[in-house]
Amino acid sequence: MVIVMEETATEEQISGVIDKLVRLGFDIHRSTGVRHTVLGAVGEHDIDWRDIELLEGVKEVLRITAPYKLASKSFKADGTKIKIKDVVIGGREVVVMAGPCTVESRDQVMAIAEIVSRSGAKVLRGGAFKPRTSPYSFQGLGEEGLKYLRQAADRHDLLVVSEVMEPSQIPLFIRYVDILQIGARNMQNFNLLREVGRINKPVLLKRGPAATIEETLLAAEYIMSGGNHEVILCERGIRTFEPYLRNTFDISAIPVFKKLSHLPVAADPSHATGRRDKVAPVAQAAVAAGADALLIEVHNDPDNALCDGAQSLLPEQFEQLMHRLRLIAEAVDREVAPGVEEAVR
Amino acid sequence: MVIVMEETATEEQISGVIDKLVRLGFDIHRSTGVRHTVLGAVGEHDIDWRDIELLEGVKEVLRITAPYKLASKSFKADGTKIKIKDVVIGGREVVVMAGPCTVESRDQVMAIAEIVSRSGAKVLRGGAFKPRTSPYSFQGLGEEGLKYLRQAADRHDLLVVSEVMEPSQIPLFIRYVDILQIGARNMQNFNLLREVGRINKPVLLKRGPAATIEETLLAAEYIMSGGNHEVILCERGIRTFEPYLRNTFDISAIPVFKKLSHLPVAADPSHATGRRDKVAPVAQAAVAAGADALLIEVHNDPDNALCDGAQSLLPEQFEQLMHRLRLIAEAVDREVAPGVEEAVR
Amino acid sequence: MVIVMEETATEEQISGVIDKLVRLGFDIHRSTGVRHTVLGAVGEHDIDWRDIELLEGVKEVLRITAPYKLASKSFKADGTKIKIKDVVIGGREVVVMAGPCTVESRDQVMAIAEIVSRSGAKVLRGGAFKPRTSPYSFQGLGEEGLKYLRQAADRHDLLVVSEVMEPSQIPLFIRYVDILQIGARNMQNFNLLREVGRINKPVLLKRGPAATIEETLLAAEYIMSGGNHEVILCERGIRTFEPYLRNTFDISAIPVFKKLSHLPVAADPSHATGRRDKVAPVAQAAVAAGADALLIEVHNDPDNALCDGAQSLLPEQFEQLMHRLRLIAEAVDREVAPGVEEAVR
Amino acid sequence: MVIVMEETATEEQISGVIDKLVRLGFDIHRSTGVRHTVLGAVGEHDIDWRDIELLEGVKEVLRITAPYKLASKSFKADGTKIKIKDVVIGGREVVVMAGPCTVESRDQVMAIAEIVSRSGAKVLRGGAFKPRTSPYSFQGLGEEGLKYLRQAADRHDLLVVSEVMEPSQIPLFIRYVDILQIGARNMQNFNLLREVGRINKPVLLKRGPAATIEETLLAAEYIMSGGNHEVILCERGIRTFEPYLRNTFDISAIPVFKKLSHLPVAADPSHATGRRDKVAPVAQAAVAAGADALLIEVHNDPDNALCDGAQSLLPEQFEQLMHRLRLIAEAVDREVAPGVEEAVR
Repeated sequence: MVIVMEETATEEQISGVIDKLVRLGFDIHRSTGVRHTVLGAVGEHDIDWRDIELLEGVKEVLRITAPYKLASKSFKADGTKIKIKDVVIGGREVVVMAGPCTVESRDQVMAIAEIVSRSGAKVLRGGAFKPRTSPYSFQGLGEEGLKYLRQAADRHDLLVVSEVMEPSQIPLFIRYVDILQIGARNMQNFNLLREVGRINKPVLLKRGPAATIEETLLAAEYIMSGGNHEVILCERGIRTFEPYLRNTFDISAIPVFKKLSHLPVAADPSHATGRRDKVAPVAQAAVAAGADALLIEVHNDPDNALCDGAQSLLPEQFEQLMHRLRLIAEAVDREVAPGVEEAVR
Repeated sequence: MVIVMEETATEEQISGVIDKLVRLGFDIHRSTGVRHTVLGAVGEHDIDWRDIELLEGVKEVLRITAPYKLASKSFKADGTKIKIKDVVIGGREVVVMAGPCTVESRDQVMAIAEIVSRSGAKVLRGGAFKPRTSPYSFQGLGEEGLKYLRQAADRHDLLVVSEVMEPSQIPLFIRYVDILQIGARNMQNFNLLREVGRINKPVLLKRGPAATIEETLLAAEYIMSGGNHEVILCERGIRTFEPYLRNTFDISAIPVFKKLSHLPVAADPSHATGRRDKVAPVAQAAVAAGADALLIEVHNDPDNALCDGAQSLLPEQFEQLMHRLRLIAEAVDREVAPGVEEAVR
Repeated sequence: MVIVMEETATEEQISGVIDKLVRLGFDIHRSTGVRHTVLGAVGEHDIDWRDIELLEGVKEVLRITAPYKLASKSFKADGTKIKIKDVVIGGREVVVMAGPCTVESRDQVMAIAEIVSRSGAKVLRGGAFKPRTSPYSFQGLGEEGLKYLRQAADRHDLLVVSEVMEPSQIPLFIRYVDILQIGARNMQNFNLLREVGRINKPVLLKRGPAATIEETLLAAEYIMSGGNHEVILCERGIRTFEPYLRNTFDISAIPVFKKLSHLPVAADPSHATGRRDKVAPVAQAAVAAGADALLIEVHNDPDNALCDGAQSLLPEQFEQLMHRLRLIAEAVDREVAPGVEEAVR
Repeated sequence: MVIVMEETATEEQISGVIDKLVRLGFDIHRSTGVRHTVLGAVGEHDIDWRDIELLEGVKEVLRITAPYKLASKSFKADGTKIKIKDVVIGGREVVVMAGPCTVESRDQVMAIAEIVSRSGAKVLRGGAFKPRTSPYSFQGLGEEGLKYLRQAADRHDLLVVSEVMEPSQIPLFIRYVDILQIGARNMQNFNLLREVGRINKPVLLKRGPAATIEETLLAAEYIMSGGNHEVILCERGIRTFEPYLRNTFDISAIPVFKKLSHLPVAADPSHATGRRDKVAPVAQAAVAAGADALLIEVHNDPDNALCDGAQSLLPEQFEQLMHRLRLIAEAVDREVAPGVEEAVR
């Protein structure tokens, strides 16, 4: 922490600040400049920097140590590779996770699992517990939905990712899914973060729509501090003044996350844009910018989907997109798994 | 819902849209203009407007019916007055809720309750369960904290407001508090909203830092649809590009909430600004703009507070502020309860 | 400037950074901590801090010296009082500047000047050159408009403020107006800022809708560095995700400006809200938060106004508002000039 | 325009609104629903919709006709191709515009022109008039700079793009440049837009950092309404709450612009990110998302650049990037011109 004193700060005020910091356990380096006196406070004591900022004579407080450690690149220089069965997230392959917004029936999940698997997806996504903005909307199939996901995934050799809503659901999720998703609205639900930090299943952590990159890394840190180091960060759009689409996908968050952290980075163009016809360009952009994984909503009958049909790709759109993603991945020295057709060739 | 067709839309596309809407149960009014064909869809069917927007030939979809009803002014023209014991929120009095960020000990709460009561506060605020951004920080006293709040409030004839974090805590809160607070991060935690909608205690609902005014009203609607109509809206700052303070207090949200809804509106200048020296001007502004209640953090020893000391007012600052608030309230035909000194005069 | 090195930075990288800074003319204090090496660079050389941030081994660069000096509180501890004829901006009085959005005719300006003067306004505002979003809209009366403003102001003992659009218009404005307004869109038009810095008339500088508080102070600094120290800062709303009103009025910017700078601070609730029915609450809030001046649009026939009628107060609304503002000003130890009726009493 | 009346609106209020609209020249369709009366106002009269919104009994006003016409896809379904000499912007080729932030000397421009030309750029960019945030910084070479750009471009068979700051500079720019750039800060400088609308040179229009997509299209419309239809839209990042990089590049603006308008779309990753190490991923993403052109800053000696060296690519970085862009362009059925090395192969 660096404390910059006002130009007009008195010697008494400076001593006051130094005394306070020393009492808090810091070592102090004082540097007297032409305009400002600057105090460097060395130590790792957990204090509220605003308390220092409010002391008399203080102009501003500059915080040095980024408060995340386990998630930072300096903790671990090499990128984390998360291996689940034969899928590696964070390696050369860009892993595609696809499926419906919500699990509606066994048949639906079976059909979509086949479609996305044939096109090269490695992970089946789908919601079983749906927190809906209207109390009258479909609230998900619950455990039944998780079962269907598991069955469909197993039949097509896919992994399963699904969103866990509260701590009490974790034991259930552990039984059925391979990756637990923390939704954007829960990114700072610290009870939930703490609990998923105690299990040993990978966690996909979505950035909140009003969360900075740093706050997202702090949320990852929260999970990791519990012992679970397998966290996948996920950019899914932030809230800005631009109203045309649901959120503004922050494309540069991908390279920034990769510079600051060793954790793999996923992108969710479906939720960011909220419109089927904008999913492909943003998915392509995410791969071009270095994403390690993608989450894409696909539905075999989006017109009758119980949730977010408007942002779900049709099967043939998904297949076309996967084809393009393969070419773009190659252009950036990565790869996307081949679909059935491609594999045969 | 009004559907505006592209200028280039074909008759076939227009018929396609009409057919779809009729199948969904809407009555259609077609209006053919020089440039656009416009379709008015009349009915109250819960559909995803984006599905219509994606149909061929559609330029844009304008949604008419605001999706909140119970919370809207047109549902109830007169302002809702929430009466708890002898305190009325939403009446002529601007009710001040004050207390520490978090309950630290019985002595602390007793001392602060006395201070805020003497200055004219009517409600004691304080956190018992604290979701902290660091897993190593103090997490609150839990039920013990609620007990202390109740005891301190009873001794000084105050009400109690405290934040409930999850549905399982509700029975506990009902026993101890008069108003359940839903925190900004939980504004769209629909499980929690649903559950507080089923009780008959008033709820103070904080606007999320990335939530629009409309979304806040929808969250209130969610609670009210469960039968609990005693909701207090609370502006506490939104996230913007301006970095100097923690959040940007949206002062005009106060008159906008009051125009759109009959619910009382509170303001929380402590969390919005995050700095003690900015709390008073924003509190004063909120009353001048028409707020029905204020939430203010006060601490008798902020330097040693376990949480957010930097934004807590000192007792004497609180007393001064209350004095000013009384004058401003009068200027806008409202009143703030007198403190002990004032009452004596 | 403080340079924080990565934990993994090599001695070679650290030396590289030191060498670069020394070559640029800085003195360096090196502090080696358990985790980081931190370099303090002392000197006032104008460099791009991003160049340092990109050096190998650098984690982050913290800038100390706020780049504004003349505008800062540490340059001048007492608040600047700008005296124009017998009006003082920045003193005990909250000065109200009122008038139409745009000058439409001699009669209109005369009528409105009488209205606002009778209610206690001290400055007549009005646009003569109007940059309109549609090329087909009324573009203002030009010099004719300035003349009418001057005549109307002189008759009612008012000052004149009007927006100057480009450097070439300055000589014209000097002849007719008392305060030159820089519009929000021109806040970073550095040519224009430089030119108004060379004259000796007060400048009212509007914060841009996407400008931070710091950037606004830098724009003021730009003007002041030319020799003109009579700058009035003006908050008029920023762009955020909230769509209900045109802009989000940043109420806490008022106390922040006053903490960081000695310059007087004005507020423009008309442009911030864009709606007549929201002007009064925000104007009241601005005074309660410490504003030194207000800009308010008033029109005697807003339904037929050529510009922004929707945000103009009716004469009787303005009079009522002025009455309230007087009471609020008193509550915060300020005053608003009495209107004719009040003065008589 | 569709006017939605309050549920509680009286017949008198409804008639009042209808009368007002009829007087303004609109035809009215009235539709009485169970909850609301809805009025459709047909006509193309230029009115301020807020005036209607403020009438008694009005709940909200929905504007139908997007106020831009010439720039809209419905005006011209095929994408506009702007042909300048043998370069086509908006065709199959993704055109790369590269060069220094500012022209520093004849030698510098000559050297950089050779570099970017060898790597496949088709347009040389560079600033001659630099509006700097500090009054003491280098302000550009002026006409001299434009001359150097022209000479360097001619020698290497490049076009020239450079930013015009004010109307008086236009004649000068017409003499030297092929594309006039309107900077982000000037996107709503309507005087300047009007003047470039009267010439017959292509205009590259940068989106303002606080401008919506719709406002950017309106600014393009402003230019086009003067007769100049050769406008290139340019996404360069918007201001959001995320502080890590200078701006948030709005990647989905690219497909949205292309859906709403027929104009070509460029991307400027250098200004959006402000950091050399983030330029390549965002440039790659922009091409993957469908950009028609890129603006990239390149400098042969960025450490000593007079302006924005931190965001300028080194020659070898630019060459590598161009190589990748070629592969990505192919993946999306586009192409980037080969560099010298590639062409030889």
